[in-house]
Amino acid sequence: MLDNKENKRTSLEQLGEFGLIEHLTKHFVSEQQSTEKGIGDDGAVLDFKSNKVVVSTDLLVEGVHFDLSYMPLKHLGYKAVVVNISDICAMNAVPTQITVSIAVSNRFPLEALEEFYAGIQLASNYYNVDVIGGDTTSSQTGLIISVTAIGEAEEKDITYRSGAKDTDLLVVTGDLGAAYMGLQILEREKQVFLVNPNNQPDLEHYSYLIERQLKPEARKDIKALLYDLDVKPTSMIDISDGLSSELFHICKQSGVGCNVYEDKLPLDPQFINVCEEFNIDSTTIAINGGEDYELLFSIKMEDYDKIKGNPHLSVIGHIVPENEGLHIVTRENTKIPLKAKGWNAFKE
Amino acid sequence: MLDNKENKRTSLEQLGEFGLIEHLTKHFVSEQQSTEKGIGDDGAVLDFKSNKVVVSTDLLVEGVHFDLSYMPLKHLGYKAVVVNISDICAMNAVPTQITVSIAVSNRFPLEALEEFYAGIQLASNYYNVDVIGGDTTSSQTGLIISVTAIGEAEEKDITYRSGAKDTDLLVVTGDLGAAYMGLQILEREKQVFLVNPNNQPDLEHYSYLIERQLKPEARKDIKALLYDLDVKPTSMIDISDGLSSELFHICKQSGVGCNVYEDKLPLDPQFINVCEEFNIDSTTIAINGGEDYELLFSIKMEDYDKIKGNPHLSVIGHIVPENEGLHIVTRENTKIPLKAKGWNAFKE
Repeated sequence: MLDNKENKRTSLEQLGEFGLIEHLTKHFVSEQQSTEKGIGDDGAVLDFKSNKVVVSTDLLVEGVHFDLSYMPLKHLGYKAVVVNISDICAMNAVPTQITVSIAVSNRFPLEALEEFYAGIQLASNYYNVDVIGGDTTSSQTGLIISVTAIGEAEEKDITYRSGAKDTDLLVVTGDLGAAYMGLQILEREKQVFLVNPNNQPDLEHYSYLIERQLKPEARKDIKALLYDLDVKPTSMIDISDGLSSELFHICKQSGVGCNVYEDKLPLDPQFINVCEEFNIDSTTIAINGGEDYELLFSIKMEDYDKIKGNPHLSVIGHIVPENEGLHIVTRENTKIPLKAKGWNAFKE
Repeated sequence: MLDNKENKRTSLEQLGEFGLIEHLTKHFVSEQQSTEKGIGDDGAVLDFKSNKVVVSTDLLVEGVHFDLSYMPLKHLGYKAVVVNISDICAMNAVPTQITVSIAVSNRFPLEALEEFYAGIQLASNYYNVDVIGGDTTSSQTGLIISVTAIGEAEEKDITYRSGAKDTDLLVVTGDLGAAYMGLQILEREKQVFLVNPNNQPDLEHYSYLIERQLKPEARKDIKALLYDLDVKPTSMIDISDGLSSELFHICKQSGVGCNVYEDKLPLDPQFINVCEEFNIDSTTIAINGGEDYELLFSIKMEDYDKIKGNPHLSVIGHIVPENEGLHIVTRENTKIPLKAKGWNAFKE
């Protein structure tokens, strides 16, 4: 599980900053029509014609957002792209370009960065975004990754957090909580590995959960899906910090409240099994676990028939007036106030 | 010189990640016409109509790019904006928006980040750019800053590094080397301070150099100046890593060589005095010292009369065919090959 990164080592110092950028990005080809000039000048040049431009940015810090002892660098590169593209998708826009900056300590050989950039390239090909720039520098300790994602959309399609209205239905894509439980399994196996490095973990029963943690995907498909279903979402956000936290963002910015139904939360069978194995309440994790990178959105009640039965979409509740607050309705029909337990990077 | 940051401390943990972003950015108002939605959603929304969009990004790492023992946080925030805006100016574009992400260890109290953001706000007001997004997270050690700058320009105005032609004249704005000598003075005073903390440094003779290091400015004025002079630069780059390094970029991407004349390099009298005091060759520093954030550009020979005598502009040499290479011609009329001594963040 733990990579042996010692096989081949080329020091970063040998290449220098410009040599490094050139080396790492030489296979990147711009394919978006809106990219006029990518890497290689003081700035990239883009042309979006009459479309709106959507911009989002995220920082990923070693030891805070990822642990290289179980996160292969190629997966990390892939995930760094995905988490940013997810934000563009959450505006109901189409991702088109990214910039990737890294600060990296000298302990990383060139081959490690090549792995990281292979993941960047894999994701940028899969999501059809151009890598148009970035910066590469040294850090005194770990690896820090900064990605800025750019996308485009027609004005009429852009969806904010602030558009949810009373009686709208709340919908999530995919399922919830799996990425969080994937992390718990990886943490557990790391502890086992530290005690007995010869132990070969059997992770077959956890493959879906681990993949959700190590190689999440952004829901780039949802914009087209909703378009085909003739549904315009009234508000939208991506689930990075946990459903509860995202519900608070939507409700606060829309000036509304919501009821979410415990029995409507979409959970994967593997997720339910592992919650039992860990003796953790699956609803708590589905609500508060982060990093699912699914989309949460609201639609008008009259659009219900259009999305009913779609395997990608689950109606989990509805919007209520602001003074009614945010609640989860349990299987026993008890109303419990939701808490924004969103992840706080500054907590120890 | 060394700030006392202990006066008032509010821990970052108290605020949490969302509270922190909201607190730090609540005074930021979007003023650019192209900003439709700034901070507060998954992404910002911009509208550039028929203009091209220019994007550039830079990482600044504590201990690599800055030393907080003599860099006040407000200046650091200002400088983080400036170095990115400088890249947009170097495309002959107008900066319009920035995103600011920081990773910061718990040792920084809220008041320190407020200082940093006060500098961000000062610069964004001065340069008329909107802060449209960012990310705030914790780091295990120092402060890491990632800024992405966005600008706009008409297609005909955008200037690449690749457009220099044989016989074009090479022009720089402002003067060279001062920021590097400012750093040398600050480093010297830091050593004095460490030996004798009660020593009050007399920095009056060095004020210009220190300002060039601690509070550099981007040449946002040059696009308009050249427009008024009816001069279209054929290539352009900003001087962040040192004149020599930038000449190599222009020459490589344009497929040309150049001759630069030692006696034409624009040097400030204070810079010359301090080079003598430090017993350093001023030409070497003017060529290799970085962080001037002036612009280097080429113009057609026939435009010489239009810029002649302009106090902001100095013709320092001319473009030659590629096979002639890159040279500096000394005061004694000796031709010495230029070396790309650009700053390498990966060198110890």
